[in-house]
Amino acid sequence: MDTVGKVIKCRAAVAWEPNKPLVMEEIEVAPPEANEIRIKIVATAVCHTDLFFLHERNKGDGFPAVLGHEAAGTVESVGPGVTRFKPGDKVIPLFVSQCRECRFCLNPSTNQCDKNWPGKRYDVSSDTTSRLKCKGKTLLQFLGTSTFSEYTVVKEIAVAKIHDSSPLDKVCLLGCGIATGYGAAVNTAKVQPGSTCAVFGLGAVGLAAVMGCKAAGASRIIAVDINKDKFQKAEVFGATEFVNPKDHDKPISQVLAEMTNGGVDFSLECVGNVGVMRSALESCVKGWGVSVLVGWTDVEDFSASPIQLIAGRTWKGSLFGGFKSNDGVPKLVNDYLDKKLKLDEFITHTMTLDQINDAIELLKTGKCIRTVLNVSAP
Amino acid sequence: MDTVGKVIKCRAAVAWEPNKPLVMEEIEVAPPEANEIRIKIVATAVCHTDLFFLHERNKGDGFPAVLGHEAAGTVESVGPGVTRFKPGDKVIPLFVSQCRECRFCLNPSTNQCDKNWPGKRYDVSSDTTSRLKCKGKTLLQFLGTSTFSEYTVVKEIAVAKIHDSSPLDKVCLLGCGIATGYGAAVNTAKVQPGSTCAVFGLGAVGLAAVMGCKAAGASRIIAVDINKDKFQKAEVFGATEFVNPKDHDKPISQVLAEMTNGGVDFSLECVGNVGVMRSALESCVKGWGVSVLVGWTDVEDFSASPIQLIAGRTWKGSLFGGFKSNDGVPKLVNDYLDKKLKLDEFITHTMTLDQINDAIELLKTGKCIRTVLNVSAP
Repeated sequence: MDTVGKVIKCRAAVAWEPNKPLVMEEIEVAPPEANEIRIKIVATAVCHTDLFFLHERNKGDGFPAVLGHEAAGTVESVGPGVTRFKPGDKVIPLFVSQCRECRFCLNPSTNQCDKNWPGKRYDVSSDTTSRLKCKGKTLLQFLGTSTFSEYTVVKEIAVAKIHDSSPLDKVCLLGCGIATGYGAAVNTAKVQPGSTCAVFGLGAVGLAAVMGCKAAGASRIIAVDINKDKFQKAEVFGATEFVNPKDHDKPISQVLAEMTNGGVDFSLECVGNVGVMRSALESCVKGWGVSVLVGWTDVEDFSASPIQLIAGRTWKGSLFGGFKSNDGVPKLVNDYLDKKLKLDEFITHTMTLDQINDAIELLKTGKCIRTVLNVSAP
Repeated sequence: MDTVGKVIKCRAAVAWEPNKPLVMEEIEVAPPEANEIRIKIVATAVCHTDLFFLHERNKGDGFPAVLGHEAAGTVESVGPGVTRFKPGDKVIPLFVSQCRECRFCLNPSTNQCDKNWPGKRYDVSSDTTSRLKCKGKTLLQFLGTSTFSEYTVVKEIAVAKIHDSSPLDKVCLLGCGIATGYGAAVNTAKVQPGSTCAVFGLGAVGLAAVMGCKAAGASRIIAVDINKDKFQKAEVFGATEFVNPKDHDKPISQVLAEMTNGGVDFSLECVGNVGVMRSALESCVKGWGVSVLVGWTDVEDFSASPIQLIAGRTWKGSLFGGFKSNDGVPKLVNDYLDKKLKLDEFITHTMTLDQINDAIELLKTGKCIRTVLNVSAP
């Protein structure tokens, strides 16, 4: 506890500039300020959104930064005003906040807290204040979390306190991908028992969406991916059928319409590709089909013919699976502890933080579902 | 009744080819076949969708045709198998069918009957069978209705029987525009009491949407149009505020966000312009905003940034206001007779069928809300 109130020097993977490998550096982590929590990161995973920001969204702003937003750790110390957390608590940092005071938090139908990072800056960047420094430079805190570091500082409204017996190297996945896909099916699409669903993209988010469709009682869950190696995994999470668009010379929406007498009841786009978004909408049945954007991109616009909506389809989107973050994540952790939710099956690789560039490469090339990086001893 | 079973020769406005004035001709109307009804049209109005088909959607198919789909009349005779209608019944022909048998009709959440015209052919054209002929040529029946004629033949599943005391020169408007706009607010958007709404485009459909927002209990109804002459009319139907995008040098979505602390709860696009569709979505508040496409176009794609949906907005569309047509229209007529629904206030001009090209010109130039054409004596 002799670190309390002091600057901590520790190791972190720094993104100095876009499109370059991350660099392991010694950084300085300032003590938490009012209503902030300093967290020792025990395990972090790498998510496509980290890659998206690093590789695709190069507007030049947002660097240098510490990326990472899917992690778990323990509270090292708390800033003034923090009463719900104490040192040693197991926690998951959250890129979606829940202040419990704004009109969005007070409305049960949304998780779009007005103090969200993405709520303030749609460029998915970071606040201009930061507790992280390296070589005299301020490191921006990507999504407010910056979990590719042994220590980070997060706002209290963006931290979930989880069960003491949680294995942090597993539940870290609930910090983004698994909550996002699972909740998109259960909370946003509101998949109905007996319905037919299609999930586009079988990365961790898509597989979690498959799991969500199954939990919601879907009768048919059609998993769609151009990488046939992902199909076996999808079955583990509940997929009943598989379609590889490469196996067909007609549009995938037509293939699905023929398989389902006119289209699926629910489709979930878990790729972040605007062409796939359109296909996912067009794969829905007229009258009541619901399509949900889950994959993240803000580089291109999505589009469709107006008749697609006029014919009775609904287009929605999901951020963090629609879960109110502080409330939702501890429940998901408990579901995992009660064996109602799979997490271990998503983890295909385990490495250390030093190997982060290898982990990024695995994700870029589609060779992993999730790589968990061990950062500190629990 | 001496016309029963015989071909009727009567006057109709024929669209021989795209982008040309309609031509008044003597046409031949065959007797109704099985499950069909021959209707004497008493009054018809002109809707933007007629113009859209005539002027904008020139793929060459669909001509020659008799346009018109917003009308009322009386049953002249019925074909074999028709038991719910008898000669003399007051009726409204419907461009959306309700067969009561298909899975869409059996599902309470949609009006997209599988036997719809638009369900079969998204090009909003017409069936290839027709009961109408002129100069030896078959005239296609636009949307299955073809009400710019003294007589037409419509499928039984696409006819609403209405109250005997209905004034046909008023309730004809319930055949399309007014049901479409009103229902888009009440049934599709499901406008909530106390909510804030924006209606884009103050033609008949938009004004009916304003009326629907008011009926649903909206607290603020912001009417948006670039034609300031329409604002006074909007107030009659319940608009509380007016915004003319021409009065502002910033995007209309930003103007509305500033007026409403972040955006409206519900927006309705009643223009059929893909740029306005985008503005209407972007004018919604994050978290729970719902935007509905009501205006019809299938020439261009609509588009937006994925973040707009991921931030919690929902994009929907509405066909015929979501009303199951046979069930819904008689109730709307009764609401009008009970003075719960305005219709007279939409009618700015009254003419005869012979003056149809003048009526089209009035609509094109935004100088009317609705022109009702008297076709036959009641």
